[in-house]
Amino acid sequence: MNLVWIVPLSGVLALLFVVYLAWDVLRRDKGTKEMQDVAATIFEGAVAFIKRQYLTIAVLAIIAAVIIGVLVSFEQFTETNVKGIELGIRTAIAFLVGAAASALSGIIGMYVAVQSNVRVAGAARKGVEPALAVALRGGAVSGFLVVGLSLIGVYLMFLAYGGLSGTEAARNAPFLIVGMGFGASFVALFAQLGGGIYTKAADVGSDLVGKVEAGIPEDDPRNAGVIADLVGDNVGDCAGRGADLFESTVAENIGAMILGVAIFAVTKNVDWIFFPLVVRAFGLIASIVGVWATTTLPFFKLNPGEEPMNPMFRGFALTVVLAAIAMYFVVTQLLGNVMFFWAGVVGLLTSVAFFLITMYYTESRWRPVQSIAKASLRGTGPNIITGLAVGLENTAAPVVTVGIALIASYWLGAQAAAALHVEPYVAGVFGTAVATMGMLMPAAFILAMDTFGPIVDNAGGIVEMSGAPADIRKGTDALDAAGNTTKALTKGYAIGSAALAAFLLFSAYLDKVAAVRAAMGLPEAVVKASHTVDLGKVEVFVGAMLGAALIFLFSSLAMRAVSQVAEKIVDEVRRQFREIPGIMERKNKPDYARAVDITATGAQRAMVAPGLLAVGVPIIVGILLRAEAEAALLMVGTIAGIVLATVMNNGGGAWDNAKKFIESGEFRDEKGVVHKKGSDAHKAAVVGDTVGDPFKDTAGPSLHVLIKLLSTITLVLAPLFI
Amino acid sequence: MNLVWIVPLSGVLALLFVVYLAWDVLRRDKGTKEMQDVAATIFEGAVAFIKRQYLTIAVLAIIAAVIIGVLVSFEQFTETNVKGIELGIRTAIAFLVGAAASALSGIIGMYVAVQSNVRVAGAARKGVEPALAVALRGGAVSGFLVVGLSLIGVYLMFLAYGGLSGTEAARNAPFLIVGMGFGASFVALFAQLGGGIYTKAADVGSDLVGKVEAGIPEDDPRNAGVIADLVGDNVGDCAGRGADLFESTVAENIGAMILGVAIFAVTKNVDWIFFPLVVRAFGLIASIVGVWATTTLPFFKLNPGEEPMNPMFRGFALTVVLAAIAMYFVVTQLLGNVMFFWAGVVGLLTSVAFFLITMYYTESRWRPVQSIAKASLRGTGPNIITGLAVGLENTAAPVVTVGIALIASYWLGAQAAAALHVEPYVAGVFGTAVATMGMLMPAAFILAMDTFGPIVDNAGGIVEMSGAPADIRKGTDALDAAGNTTKALTKGYAIGSAALAAFLLFSAYLDKVAAVRAAMGLPEAVVKASHTVDLGKVEVFVGAMLGAALIFLFSSLAMRAVSQVAEKIVDEVRRQFREIPGIMERKNKPDYARAVDITATGAQRAMVAPGLLAVGVPIIVGILLRAEAEAALLMVGTIAGIVLATVMNNGGGAWDNAKKFIESGEFRDEKGVVHKKGSDAHKAAVVGDTVGDPFKDTAGPSLHVLIKLLSTITLVLAPLFI
Repeated sequence: MNLVWIVPLSGVLALLFVVYLAWDVLRRDKGTKEMQDVAATIFEGAVAFIKRQYLTIAVLAIIAAVIIGVLVSFEQFTETNVKGIELGIRTAIAFLVGAAASALSGIIGMYVAVQSNVRVAGAARKGVEPALAVALRGGAVSGFLVVGLSLIGVYLMFLAYGGLSGTEAARNAPFLIVGMGFGASFVALFAQLGGGIYTKAADVGSDLVGKVEAGIPEDDPRNAGVIADLVGDNVGDCAGRGADLFESTVAENIGAMILGVAIFAVTKNVDWIFFPLVVRAFGLIASIVGVWATTTLPFFKLNPGEEPMNPMFRGFALTVVLAAIAMYFVVTQLLGNVMFFWAGVVGLLTSVAFFLITMYYTESRWRPVQSIAKASLRGTGPNIITGLAVGLENTAAPVVTVGIALIASYWLGAQAAAALHVEPYVAGVFGTAVATMGMLMPAAFILAMDTFGPIVDNAGGIVEMSGAPADIRKGTDALDAAGNTTKALTKGYAIGSAALAAFLLFSAYLDKVAAVRAAMGLPEAVVKASHTVDLGKVEVFVGAMLGAALIFLFSSLAMRAVSQVAEKIVDEVRRQFREIPGIMERKNKPDYARAVDITATGAQRAMVAPGLLAVGVPIIVGILLRAEAEAALLMVGTIAGIVLATVMNNGGGAWDNAKKFIESGEFRDEKGVVHKKGSDAHKAAVVGDTVGDPFKDTAGPSLHVLIKLLSTITLVLAPLFI
Repeated sequence: MNLVWIVPLSGVLALLFVVYLAWDVLRRDKGTKEMQDVAATIFEGAVAFIKRQYLTIAVLAIIAAVIIGVLVSFEQFTETNVKGIELGIRTAIAFLVGAAASALSGIIGMYVAVQSNVRVAGAARKGVEPALAVALRGGAVSGFLVVGLSLIGVYLMFLAYGGLSGTEAARNAPFLIVGMGFGASFVALFAQLGGGIYTKAADVGSDLVGKVEAGIPEDDPRNAGVIADLVGDNVGDCAGRGADLFESTVAENIGAMILGVAIFAVTKNVDWIFFPLVVRAFGLIASIVGVWATTTLPFFKLNPGEEPMNPMFRGFALTVVLAAIAMYFVVTQLLGNVMFFWAGVVGLLTSVAFFLITMYYTESRWRPVQSIAKASLRGTGPNIITGLAVGLENTAAPVVTVGIALIASYWLGAQAAAALHVEPYVAGVFGTAVATMGMLMPAAFILAMDTFGPIVDNAGGIVEMSGAPADIRKGTDALDAAGNTTKALTKGYAIGSAALAAFLLFSAYLDKVAAVRAAMGLPEAVVKASHTVDLGKVEVFVGAMLGAALIFLFSSLAMRAVSQVAEKIVDEVRRQFREIPGIMERKNKPDYARAVDITATGAQRAMVAPGLLAVGVPIIVGILLRAEAEAALLMVGTIAGIVLATVMNNGGGAWDNAKKFIESGEFRDEKGVVHKKGSDAHKAAVVGDTVGDPFKDTAGPSLHVLIKLLSTITLVLAPLFI
């Protein structure tokens, strides 16, 4: 059955849904005049930063495209019949298309998010339920845009590079469009780094002066850094994450298609190449239904008195069930072997497992967060030590989960090998790819939940700054807490899918190395050995060590950048308190724009060094130590990245929620005494949160992009390393 | 030329030197009555803990020996002609010998260290120079005991298992004594964990109540936890490190001998198997000269007004030069190929490079520590973020250094392949082994410097608690600062040598797997494939991920243990302040013994979980996922361990020295204002130090042992995983 038509169709459906959602959000009530003023200031700051940042990124991307095009043009041997200058131009175009689409996803998603926050603030006057619906719909704009654009983009590039014109061209096309993944991850890296540094420098900097020194609350309009902080939520969490998930989707889809080529080579059935796109298309449709149900249908919507997370869980469950049904349909229609359906189910279950693990480690109901709160009773040192211990501990469960999922899906795939007349390795690796596609089916729903986070965070800020009544603030506080949970869950999901996808992306790289060697006319044994990454060889082991060191050094630069930019904001806010008279008495407004400007300049400069490190090291190592050592750098770098990002994401989330747990007034010591906001334990927890901020919102998410970038760089430049 | 006789000779020389040093230290003046009282209390506490801890360890070791003996007895195929129950008994005996010798090294070294501290305090009344000499000689007892015992132990076991009786037996013997390495690392793991938890729980706990809450200085006799803190320096830093370096020496020597077997198989020259022992023997003699010169000869001794580190650097330089000369002699006599001399020089240079890197990252003269001090001006959060950034950053230089050393020594070794008629791989791996031996030649000198640290730390505590005059305290403060540097340097050296040794230990494991497969009569191709560790296979990749996760989870448990035991001490010290009247007015003494007892019980319980995790996970993974995945667990676990231990050791050292830098009164902000002890910046730096303590003295050093344990477990139990 030919199902390829579903790919553009689902993409168009998703974009129509985006238009509907955007229209629906934008027509809503924008709240009071004060709310609109605050929102307008945030909007201005966000647009100013985005303009400046994407200008820099555009320049860097164009330079990179030219360099890559030239490098690729000199490749003597490639895995396709396209070579020389034509290959260079095609790769450069694919790179730029990926870069542009990634940037677009980030920018539009952020635009709608910034427009949504004031509508959520407005809706909050009518209750939590309408506010939640507006926020989730606003978030969904970003989610569906990203996944829809990526499907359409890959489909169109595939079409343009001859993927539908015949069997041989279909074989070549996935290799030709890998440049798109590289372009997307290149932009995502800088977007996430710049945005992540911006958001946390502003947050940490304004908190340090405002909360700690001046003793005024968070989001207080007297703090000159407060608008920069609110802008930061958008440029980091929305724009950065949008670009990040765009590139993940592109890279993983293309990687899975490359693996499909190996089976296509035997079965001559082009469906194996299309399968990843088709299954993702159904996942997108399932997510549309999920979001629509969550924000519209009575059973799914928020019931009075209920936790705001519950409707989202119901919607997610619906999406997963629909995705499983669709997976069964697509597998039986296209692949004709039910084993791959079970592999897909493994992937869907993995996404559920990651939800549960992340909840356990970051919600205040469970031991980890409570242990941090408890340690805060004994001071800041114990809070930090315990938080780090929680972060380090929480790497085990995700790794074991991914390990089981990989082995199970590989085994399931390998069972189909005999029927397909391929080697067990080929079918097994494709099994892991199907599991990854299964895990990614609800991606658009997850991304909607993710952008929900900064929207409600901003809405809370607007309510606070506009001086709205306390009961409205209470509603937005509840949503804000849910937003923290969704942000943590989606980061866990992103890392989990990266871990699962890692194996398919390595395998795609090894496939490409083998294909290039075959094109060079090397002996069969050498071509076959391309699939071996032997840590017993000294240069391969050194490559592996360098991969781990790259991850740690990159994290260091990202964290240090936050610290350095935050320092500038601290100085500026202090200066304004000192030099502008009457700020504390609310007689004069601080100069928000200047603080925004300082943060933007600082973040933009600070993103360059870690970004160039991330791009440069894999290229240098590949050229010096060659293809197999490069594979080890990629693999062990990915493992280290997954583990360290998990420490940072969930550790940071746990610190944040330990602070919120104390602020909620529900935290009691052994003797039953409540320690709440303003207590010594709270002060210790605030420091922990400050440390966790660059962990979970700068270094952690940037590591996620770095892992993907390593995969796409190696895929595109593989021939240089042979 | 037969040089084997040098091995027992150098061991005996070292032991005679130990006796001389111990006699020399013990005959010294024990200072005032007050000093002796304090020292006696420390001594009691240390002995009590050691008794209790080693009793537990002995029970665990005997159980482990029985289990291992039984497991090994069931092995159908082995790499030697010894099998069945005989093999089981031999392995169990080797395990117990290694365990006993490791325990002995730790206990005697600590005994002399505890005896030295009061002599150093006494000598400090006459000046810094005699105090330094006593402390370094006291430390040298531990260093030479460990290295001497390990050489004699391996030599005797080798002799007992037929290593000198003929060529075939010589081939088998190294495999038969690997159990000794496992036993040694088993004991070292628990000793380092228990001691490390003890020392930092006592330190953090008593500081939290004393310095932070009650506002009394460190080492103040009114603090009930202060003796536990001083005891901790001995049981953690001396006993733990002694056991750790004993097992490192044993494991690395045996691993290198196993690699020698591969060359012996072709050349039939047994010198290739003895080479590692002989070269270490010369290194031991060079170290004896180095320590003797540093504490005796006019040019090398401390000059008036000089930094206490300088004489140690001069002594170290002398040792390295002598070692290089000896390396040339041994290589030309035994191996007859000068390429291996250059490989040895690479190792010696690596040890120097690690000294320089560690100094850069942990001394207050350079950017990293100064950046932490500077961040402290903006509060605790920035201090922690910057400290973590420094820790993460400082992984890059060591990894690049080890990478270059591995590739260079492999290349040098491979150049000798043609002359030896062996494969380049075999000669290359032996080249890395020679480099490792070169790096380890000055090990005894380094270990002397290491134990110097806790001795002068204790001496300072005794001077403070005995109420000695301020100028004596000034002298011991200078020595204490030098002790912090030596402790950091030796930890850097230990991790560096572990990283360099890792490759030879992996290769020894792979050699053993190949030997067992050959004994099973498997086809040549399968035997050869044993040297491949292919990350492209799904179960191997999962093994690699689990290796990284094990490292992180283990660190988490170690850090959490410190936090939990510290909590108990905080409660106890608070209770004593509350319930014992007149402590603060110095009318009544606190109950030190009870605090010591609580710490000991807590540390001993807390060490069990991480210890069992470390032993259990590699066995379970090996049995479930088999030999190749186990190799990946070992390799990637080692990489993750090296990187994380470097973060923790040097990050912790940098935090500590940032605090000391502020306390020194030399730290100025941008405007030139001095921020000294008691300032807000100092308070932030104290918290950073509290976080760094379990990093650098519990988790970091324990990770070092864990890496070695992984190597020895896999070496001993390899046949189970095939």
